[in-house]
Amino acid sequence: MTHPTTTPDELQSLLAGAAAAAPDWAARGPADRASALTAVADALDEHAGALLPLAREESHLPDGRLAGELKRTTFQLRLFAALLRDGAYLDARVDHADPDWPMGARPDIRRVLVPLGPVLNFAAGNFPFAFSVAGGDTAAALAAGCPVLVKVHPGHPRLSARTGEAVALALRDAGAPDGVFGLVNGVDEGVTALRDPRVKAASFTGSVAGGRALFDIACSRPEPIPFYGELGSVNPTFVTRAADAARAEEIAEGFVGSFTLGAGQFCTKPGVLAVPEDSAVLRRLRSAALPGPAPMLSARFAEGYARRLGELAGHAAVRPLAAHGSAHADPPAPALLTAGVEDVLAGGEELLAECFGPAALVVTYAEESQLVALARALDGQLTATVVGEDDDAVVPELVRLLAERAGRVLWNQWPTGVSVTYAQQHGGPYPATTAPTTTSVGTAAITRFLRPVAYQGFPDHLLPEALKEGNPQGLPRLVDGTPAR
Amino acid sequence: MTHPTTTPDELQSLLAGAAAAAPDWAARGPADRASALTAVADALDEHAGALLPLAREESHLPDGRLAGELKRTTFQLRLFAALLRDGAYLDARVDHADPDWPMGARPDIRRVLVPLGPVLNFAAGNFPFAFSVAGGDTAAALAAGCPVLVKVHPGHPRLSARTGEAVALALRDAGAPDGVFGLVNGVDEGVTALRDPRVKAASFTGSVAGGRALFDIACSRPEPIPFYGELGSVNPTFVTRAADAARAEEIAEGFVGSFTLGAGQFCTKPGVLAVPEDSAVLRRLRSAALPGPAPMLSARFAEGYARRLGELAGHAAVRPLAAHGSAHADPPAPALLTAGVEDVLAGGEELLAECFGPAALVVTYAEESQLVALARALDGQLTATVVGEDDDAVVPELVRLLAERAGRVLWNQWPTGVSVTYAQQHGGPYPATTAPTTTSVGTAAITRFLRPVAYQGFPDHLLPEALKEGNPQGLPRLVDGTPAR
Repeated sequence: MTHPTTTPDELQSLLAGAAAAAPDWAARGPADRASALTAVADALDEHAGALLPLAREESHLPDGRLAGELKRTTFQLRLFAALLRDGAYLDARVDHADPDWPMGARPDIRRVLVPLGPVLNFAAGNFPFAFSVAGGDTAAALAAGCPVLVKVHPGHPRLSARTGEAVALALRDAGAPDGVFGLVNGVDEGVTALRDPRVKAASFTGSVAGGRALFDIACSRPEPIPFYGELGSVNPTFVTRAADAARAEEIAEGFVGSFTLGAGQFCTKPGVLAVPEDSAVLRRLRSAALPGPAPMLSARFAEGYARRLGELAGHAAVRPLAAHGSAHADPPAPALLTAGVEDVLAGGEELLAECFGPAALVVTYAEESQLVALARALDGQLTATVVGEDDDAVVPELVRLLAERAGRVLWNQWPTGVSVTYAQQHGGPYPATTAPTTTSVGTAAITRFLRPVAYQGFPDHLLPEALKEGNPQGLPRLVDGTPAR
Repeated sequence: MTHPTTTPDELQSLLAGAAAAAPDWAARGPADRASALTAVADALDEHAGALLPLAREESHLPDGRLAGELKRTTFQLRLFAALLRDGAYLDARVDHADPDWPMGARPDIRRVLVPLGPVLNFAAGNFPFAFSVAGGDTAAALAAGCPVLVKVHPGHPRLSARTGEAVALALRDAGAPDGVFGLVNGVDEGVTALRDPRVKAASFTGSVAGGRALFDIACSRPEPIPFYGELGSVNPTFVTRAADAARAEEIAEGFVGSFTLGAGQFCTKPGVLAVPEDSAVLRRLRSAALPGPAPMLSARFAEGYARRLGELAGHAAVRPLAAHGSAHADPPAPALLTAGVEDVLAGGEELLAECFGPAALVVTYAEESQLVALARALDGQLTATVVGEDDDAVVPELVRLLAERAGRVLWNQWPTGVSVTYAQQHGGPYPATTAPTTTSVGTAAITRFLRPVAYQGFPDHLLPEALKEGNPQGLPRLVDGTPAR
């Protein structure tokens, strides 16, 4: 399905509109923006009957999954609305003048977070709702007070257009300024927008190659801008000997369910599973009833899957473990490969790079010390999982090493399924992301689109509401270094 | 004064040492690291008698200024120690499992900030203590739990070596791991370190050209890393008509004092002052008794000053306003230039780029609406100042525009002098910095060297202390979205 690309005139109009809307949207009180986000959530719920069939048609994802994803999307918008109403996200700080400040007299300084300006959000292909037009990056940036332009993912153009209409209408009806939200169609048009000086930050969810190319553009602008790219991860899972002995069936079933979920098209898919040689889990996986082929998001994703799986399978150290059909069939079949840990350590990046689709590499080890060596060899990861028993000797060191390399570490759970919560962290060192100090899921995601401004020596009537002496918004603040409300 | 550059073997040893120290330093409790920072501060105080004369000799800065700067430096170390003891900087969050979480059952997720790993800090030339070997970036990174390598500024090599010895010894005596701190001498050696995969973040204070070159290297690594560059700023000051009429003498004196302070070698020097045409401030500045020439940090800084001042003075729209000697003399004389606001708006970047040294451009306006136009034309700034009266009509719009472009906005105060406090913000959009969402001064500076990690589904005994259910460290935490201690 082709879709008209944004014309140069339209793009200029979108960029000008976003820039013009920025001061007005920033100046709205958090309560106003919260109402607007809630209105967007309500509109998505209201249009679910039109949106879900479009999503089904364009993404080939099953109805249940899409309904759950839409629920997640509207929940996320409402959670950011609640965050705005609370106000702690502003990190408001008041330091009163202090003639006795030990380094020398301190002036009155007050600091609050303000929006960065227009944000360009590159939508993901694998979550047509939750990481697309009205997804997490859009919700976080709008909540922060930034206008948002969404570069539409070409995999679901009609759903994007329909969602975009609903979002734009809901924002307009909620009194948001014209230009606060818009869609950009076309690869080159997205790059042109990324290079435009009116865009002040960008976010992205997708492949390492695509994300890195855009990151490089963002960094090489005359004015470089923050680029929040969520790229690739193999999400390694480490099964200890004791866990293998105790719970092989549960582990094998859980793993198959997780790596084939959504046809393996999750950035948190467990792509590497380390198990003991000749272990019970390995035996079960060898004879596992893998689920049947499921359609991938598009022919492009299916081709990428078959190509990358072919690379992996063609590696001298890699052998097939289980498959029920061909990765070249339509739809392609899930596949499990296997290799020894020493070969994987020697093979490095080639074997430990993401294969987007329903495949995983089962790495066999002889000694648990090799789990530690494997953990040390990892690049940055979104997640890393330990399947172990409470008193496993290897676990503390393993968890420590994995926490150095991953944004989220899991214990006896599977990494697919990323809850939207206060403590969630969806990020990690490169290549998991281009911005290891941030998260793209959870309430902390809003800080990506904010920057601090300090006001020094101002009279009360010229201060922003958040910083006035009487705290009219009732914000939680840090006053002279101490929390106060 | 030449100084031996770090040899390739020494550099490899420093990098290996920093990487080896990282897990140990990260694993120390915040209280341990606080003790080590305090020990460093004590050591600097103890060695003041040796350090101050070296600083005087190498920087040509006056004794009083250097003593004040050393006080600032030790205060900063102790403030970070206090921050560690409090623990709020960890932003610890606990979300208990919740089967009724609206988007679907929530697992137990707990999140805390952890150190990024070894940090490379490029020292500044203009603050031989506070932004150098034991300065703010070093204090913040060590506090965060990161080993630190300092690329020594060539302007004060002996002071750097002596300070480095004191810091290293204090850290060793406080029980910090070997390799947690070291010095790198040499430009190429600094770049080699910046490219090394063991370095996980870098900080820099200096020129736009130098900082951008290093930023580009940091971003183009196979694994890009956060680069916190604090670059250039003209720190514009806007004087309203009413303020000019009411307080011309005070404003002129304050301005001269601020732009010539420390021979104008502050990143917060007010380099642009906007005043009404034929105003009282302008008349006073025309006949102002500028302070006599003061030695600059080095011949290189003096040459740079004379060259940039020559460019400015040579611009067709620029006329001399006041000078008492030549910028080419040794030491060079302060200088004031002037230009009309319309010419400045037409001249753009050429006239609104930093001149590092005791010079400033006085921009004259006919209408206060031109102040708004000038504010709109600004690039990112560290600071922007309004000198006005409480009921000036132009002020609210002006302050709003300046807060969009600067990290710190001041009211009737001068931007030089950056207090180290909880609410301080020393940063701003590019080219003020390469990282607009962060600060390099104040307690919030620590977050530059931290990243979040979430733990999902862990039993209590495998969780980090900060996240255990009983909160043994007594940290302020966000529990199920609500602040708790």
